[in-house]
Amino acid sequence: MSTPEKEITIYDIARALNISAATVSRALMDHPSVNINTKKRVQEAAQEMGYRSNQMASNLRKRKSNIIGIIVGNLNSSFMSNVIAGVEKELSDAGYNLIISQSLDNINKEINIAQAMYNNRVDGLLVSLAYETENADHFESFVKRGIPLVYFDRVWPHPQCPGIEIDNVKAAYDITEHLVTQGCKRIAHVTAYRLSSVAADRFAGFKKALEDYQMTFDENLLIQTDLTLQAGIDAAKQILAMENRPDAVFVTNDACAVSCMQELKRNGIRIPQDIAFAGFNNDTEASIIEPNLTTVDYKGYQMGEVAAQILLDRLNQTDNGLLKTSNKLIQPSEIIIRDSSLKRK
Amino acid sequence: MSTPEKEITIYDIARALNISAATVSRALMDHPSVNINTKKRVQEAAQEMGYRSNQMASNLRKRKSNIIGIIVGNLNSSFMSNVIAGVEKELSDAGYNLIISQSLDNINKEINIAQAMYNNRVDGLLVSLAYETENADHFESFVKRGIPLVYFDRVWPHPQCPGIEIDNVKAAYDITEHLVTQGCKRIAHVTAYRLSSVAADRFAGFKKALEDYQMTFDENLLIQTDLTLQAGIDAAKQILAMENRPDAVFVTNDACAVSCMQELKRNGIRIPQDIAFAGFNNDTEASIIEPNLTTVDYKGYQMGEVAAQILLDRLNQTDNGLLKTSNKLIQPSEIIIRDSSLKRK
Repeated sequence: MSTPEKEITIYDIARALNISAATVSRALMDHPSVNINTKKRVQEAAQEMGYRSNQMASNLRKRKSNIIGIIVGNLNSSFMSNVIAGVEKELSDAGYNLIISQSLDNINKEINIAQAMYNNRVDGLLVSLAYETENADHFESFVKRGIPLVYFDRVWPHPQCPGIEIDNVKAAYDITEHLVTQGCKRIAHVTAYRLSSVAADRFAGFKKALEDYQMTFDENLLIQTDLTLQAGIDAAKQILAMENRPDAVFVTNDACAVSCMQELKRNGIRIPQDIAFAGFNNDTEASIIEPNLTTVDYKGYQMGEVAAQILLDRLNQTDNGLLKTSNKLIQPSEIIIRDSSLKRK
Repeated sequence: MSTPEKEITIYDIARALNISAATVSRALMDHPSVNINTKKRVQEAAQEMGYRSNQMASNLRKRKSNIIGIIVGNLNSSFMSNVIAGVEKELSDAGYNLIISQSLDNINKEINIAQAMYNNRVDGLLVSLAYETENADHFESFVKRGIPLVYFDRVWPHPQCPGIEIDNVKAAYDITEHLVTQGCKRIAHVTAYRLSSVAADRFAGFKKALEDYQMTFDENLLIQTDLTLQAGIDAAKQILAMENRPDAVFVTNDACAVSCMQELKRNGIRIPQDIAFAGFNNDTEASIIEPNLTTVDYKGYQMGEVAAQILLDRLNQTDNGLLKTSNKLIQPSEIIIRDSSLKRK
């Protein structure tokens, strides 16, 4: 490995090309007073010698890094891949680079990443909060400096930070209602350990639907997990061990629903005849598992595009008034009914 | 939105606390001459007022940002999620934050991201190259400055940059041999448009196995695509339209293999009886599709851990000699035989 060289300055480039440092500086800033051949020579030398523009000084001048940060709980889902694809599309078109970090749903990691992104002067930030997060104080430094911050999916209500989400209560209500109208009487709910924001809203929608259909919710049918693939298997084992098994399961994410279904199938349970299934997110797995999984679809790509557009509007101060009266944006979602829940075909 | 405030300096903090700027500076650097209560007050004020350490000056002093960058072709696979999880684990333990960018397999985007990461002074870089990339000149600036760079999966041979990969030729050979020993006579290969690095190696292993079994490769059975889900569907349509259909298909990634299988199944093709299938990567989908997909497993999590360890060793200059004689590290891979290829059960 080579020894780190000292920082290359415009003076080094000037010396190498035998021109003045002022000319180098102007050439690097693409100043019209420098002729095009000189600019080319300077730019080539800068590249060749490994010159780094003084990002800090340049930021202070322009207050721009051209970098947008995004912090997500976990990258490991097709939903989140789609969100990021939508964000990338919008930002690339606008000449920004995207840097991504995941909190792994850990509040301490989220705090550290937020600090690192702040210190590295991202021009704007997109955030879907960690499951664990119970307040958003660690993002206040962005707000104070006027760095645009847009929440999506797992949002935090804040007068200066728009939030883009779906109506989780309604979606969970609709999917539960669908299970009820299929004749399901004992519906289990597999959800997160911590019933915060998204998970709480889905649970609320689930319970509301049961209430509206005069069904009492059996506490024994609430299965709280960390929502991993392994958690799906464990939930299946828990269900198999029950004396009075559910006739339907509504899982708050598809990945966990699919692994739960697979384990039940391995144990001879017929889906949907014995137990109907519904998930959430419309991840790729949902249309691969047999029977295909009934789920809630919401467009990650579109959510990413909208979040990025709002961020760009704020950066360019071209806010079109969309968020003047409210800073909460509800994206559409719809339930996709597939064979896993169709008891009455 | 609040107006951007001017940059907070140590002088502002000094004024607010009615102490000297020198004390503020020492307190922020955790200097032993400052008493603990003062340090605490300074740190709280710094946080409260939105002070950002002068990252640039601090970097020049310490030459450290505590940020590692990773550039990948595309985040959208469970393999890559696992790699990143392994990297995160190692870096978190060592006190580094990870920032991630995807090139979307586009060379121009890769060049821009590399430049942005360079300007933002990452302490080290992990790279899996874009499909399109045909040389690695755009990473030379890192090498020149002695910033450790480690390639993984899609690597570039470079005397100063270790590369971690699997033996793609051998893995493709083994899986093709398996199909041959199952009695398959006409094996199609679905791969990338551009046969560079990984795709080329897999194609080479595939052809070598056919040769060794005295089978001639029919050029009509080479299907080149962009390896997306849609490409899998298109490949299936191409196969269905063939007069002389293949009796097996080896696809160079699982996601594309699965969507191809689904489309063939929708058209009444029995797998493996009519057409046997093999994929590559052991993505989640491979064990959800029915029949489950025969594939090549290589541990993304472990590859990420190893890549990060090598990077940390270089950063800490604790290189243990592992890469002294060779800078190419071959990770193990194995073929996982499942029902999609078992014609002879």
